[in-house]
Amino acid sequence: MKRYQALAEELARSIRTGLLKPGDRLPSVRHASASRGISPATVFEAYYLLEARGLVQARPRSGYYVSSTPPPALPAEPETASQPDGQSRPVEISERVFQVLESTMHRDVVPLGSAFPSPLYFPLDKLGRALAASATALDPWSTVDDLTPGNAELRRQIALRYLIDGVQVDPREIVISNGAMEALNLCLSALTRPGDTVAVESPCFYAALQALEQHGLHALEVATDPREGIDLAALETAIERHRPAACWLMTNFQNPLGSAMGADKKRALAELLARRQLPLIEDDVYAELYFGARPAPTRAFDREGWVLHCSSFSKALAPGYRIGWVSSPRYARQLARQKLISTLATCVPAQAALARYLERGTYDRHLQHLRRSLQHNQGQYTDAIARYFPAGTRVSRPGGGYFLWLELPGGIDTLALQRRAADAGISLAPGPLFSASRGFRHCLRLNYGHPFDARAEVALKTLGQWLTE
Amino acid sequence: MKRYQALAEELARSIRTGLLKPGDRLPSVRHASASRGISPATVFEAYYLLEARGLVQARPRSGYYVSSTPPPALPAEPETASQPDGQSRPVEISERVFQVLESTMHRDVVPLGSAFPSPLYFPLDKLGRALAASATALDPWSTVDDLTPGNAELRRQIALRYLIDGVQVDPREIVISNGAMEALNLCLSALTRPGDTVAVESPCFYAALQALEQHGLHALEVATDPREGIDLAALETAIERHRPAACWLMTNFQNPLGSAMGADKKRALAELLARRQLPLIEDDVYAELYFGARPAPTRAFDREGWVLHCSSFSKALAPGYRIGWVSSPRYARQLARQKLISTLATCVPAQAALARYLERGTYDRHLQHLRRSLQHNQGQYTDAIARYFPAGTRVSRPGGGYFLWLELPGGIDTLALQRRAADAGISLAPGPLFSASRGFRHCLRLNYGHPFDARAEVALKTLGQWLTE
Repeated sequence: MKRYQALAEELARSIRTGLLKPGDRLPSVRHASASRGISPATVFEAYYLLEARGLVQARPRSGYYVSSTPPPALPAEPETASQPDGQSRPVEISERVFQVLESTMHRDVVPLGSAFPSPLYFPLDKLGRALAASATALDPWSTVDDLTPGNAELRRQIALRYLIDGVQVDPREIVISNGAMEALNLCLSALTRPGDTVAVESPCFYAALQALEQHGLHALEVATDPREGIDLAALETAIERHRPAACWLMTNFQNPLGSAMGADKKRALAELLARRQLPLIEDDVYAELYFGARPAPTRAFDREGWVLHCSSFSKALAPGYRIGWVSSPRYARQLARQKLISTLATCVPAQAALARYLERGTYDRHLQHLRRSLQHNQGQYTDAIARYFPAGTRVSRPGGGYFLWLELPGGIDTLALQRRAADAGISLAPGPLFSASRGFRHCLRLNYGHPFDARAEVALKTLGQWLTE
Repeated sequence: MKRYQALAEELARSIRTGLLKPGDRLPSVRHASASRGISPATVFEAYYLLEARGLVQARPRSGYYVSSTPPPALPAEPETASQPDGQSRPVEISERVFQVLESTMHRDVVPLGSAFPSPLYFPLDKLGRALAASATALDPWSTVDDLTPGNAELRRQIALRYLIDGVQVDPREIVISNGAMEALNLCLSALTRPGDTVAVESPCFYAALQALEQHGLHALEVATDPREGIDLAALETAIERHRPAACWLMTNFQNPLGSAMGADKKRALAELLARRQLPLIEDDVYAELYFGARPAPTRAFDREGWVLHCSSFSKALAPGYRIGWVSSPRYARQLARQKLISTLATCVPAQAALARYLERGTYDRHLQHLRRSLQHNQGQYTDAIARYFPAGTRVSRPGGGYFLWLELPGGIDTLALQRRAADAGISLAPGPLFSASRGFRHCLRLNYGHPFDARAEVALKTLGQWLTE
């Protein structure tokens, strides 16, 4: 977060808490600049930003004042856990997902429906230098040795990051993959056969549903709390009734809900898995994007090796490098074999580059910046929704990641909204993409992983107008 | 091929054809050096090499003489087309393939069973510089734009290479993949459902069989001529009887046979596909490694879009980069969707690096060197087999690629031979890996994609001794 953003954020908070009241004058630019030791230009930028957000107004030759209209109250969060029908069913969603996504995959579309954060948040220049250094010093034999399970130093660096959460991972348990998506597919290949059932959250990430469909699997959607994640009692009932071959959960900042399971709940989940001898595919790609305390994975509580922990660097460090992994003591060998059959190996110089960056680079400093930017964005997008969207709209307040989950009031059909928005150059991810049973028609997933600029504001304002009509 | 190798090759040919006879004196080093304009050291190197191969003998203070034992005659080639039983059957081979391969995947093993050529034959330093340049100049948005179907310039460069064969390919028909292996799997996903039958050559590459097994498909092995590839009449009969969902063929320098279909045969195959409305997965990863005339793919004769042409840069330019592709006007969109579900995308900086190398680099010059090296190796390995292996051994003489196919005489069991060789640090690829019906027990695939050094010679000599026992 830049200085002007930090200042704007601080003032916005003061306005929201009532410390600054409507009509109050902000400190003069000269005063704020002197007292904080920042340049007048920085103060101006902060004030412009607050003005753009409608929180303050400029009065000619007088200064900036808190707007007389009070800032919008933060909208309520979704509260009710989902109530799927408890059926296990074949998945037929891929066609719809592609129709929605393909119409909006362009750089000039407002990326509210995107699954990616802005590439501008990542240290692509530093990574590029690491890649340049590794590429020109590449040992030719590494093109054979690093194929699968992958570059030894990269696997060691990943194991070291597990240690931060107190998880002991042997690098030999790690298989490097072409992004998390391949890791997750490798798990499905290792654990399931066509016709099997897999338990998932409700709602759940559409790519998980597409993967189930591709593998000929049935989805069993389980009740999920919008803040605390899957309902373990409901999961246990579902396991008894349907004997799934695996479950696939996002325990941290779930896509789309943003829900996160607490440590106690993860421990209870690990016990449930052991009791039921049920493998968990833990899709944990957002774990590094926390705003509060660092969340451990369920893997941390897994004594018997039932958790196959999948993640990647695509969301936290290196978009486009396509480096992910799965770690599992129990299934590592099988996963490596699956990998040999499906794509043989992962780009060797890219693996070496990430190993080098993790060893010598400034990953943690980058992550701090990234987390602050995303948290900052969350506030701005939430404010805009509060301002423009109809009363009764509920918005999640996730503790990490970059997705908001919106429950819209009235009989709103987000599939229709998505089509209208696509025509206007705005991408949206409507609720029905996140369920094999086509629920969540009044819901939207909204990406706040891009800077809140004028384009985003106009898009949200437009959507709000349509929804209010 | 280096100068001394070229000179040695020329002299070896003269000896084999009888131009130089046993007891003949080679030109003196000084004379050869002067008449050819090469250094005496180069001539010495060539003579040493011929001596190491047993073709010439040094007589102290006199010079080099053609050995009195005549050079081994080139062994006969395999001649009989395979005769599979015409059944379509589920594939259960993966476990066996892994057992054989995993025991021998180490740098210190003699790589006679390897599927890869030596990494030392590739311009990894030049590629590294291209990667360094692309990585440090990477447009952040390319990490979104280049995901799937892939980097536009790379697809344009690939389309330009198709033009060399007179094939008009629209870059939009090309989907970049994580190596050819993913491309082939994408084709299977797009064309088949579990339980379907796929027609393949007999023998055929074990990874194809593993892919069929992974997709729950049946393999229909079709009679294949060791020089001219699949028997089209047998293929048509098989199609009539079993209605396969696709066929999967390696039309150029087939792995393991080395067979190559002529242009007329490819044209006839394309007509057959159109007549039967049958898609062909054309696995063409060795096409650039020809020693004679450049072979066109079946895709060149395909008027109706039944050929899905798969290839990669892994065998010809950039091992370890994991960049492959599939080109198909009819299925491109479906293939791109499959790719999004399976691995989402291919490493973006690696794509940019290859695009840059192809645009500015010296690909064709590199290919000329590589082809000459491989052809040179073929002669050396074949000579050694002629010298050390039992009479009656038949050896293929492929016009490209880097595999020899050996038919061994008597009741030799190459699975047992492979186990013994593994214990002695020699990897082998025994015949039964190449067939779902476990045939070819007396056959071996032998990699000549590594320089013929003392280690390779000792390994072949040892194998020959065991086989002669």
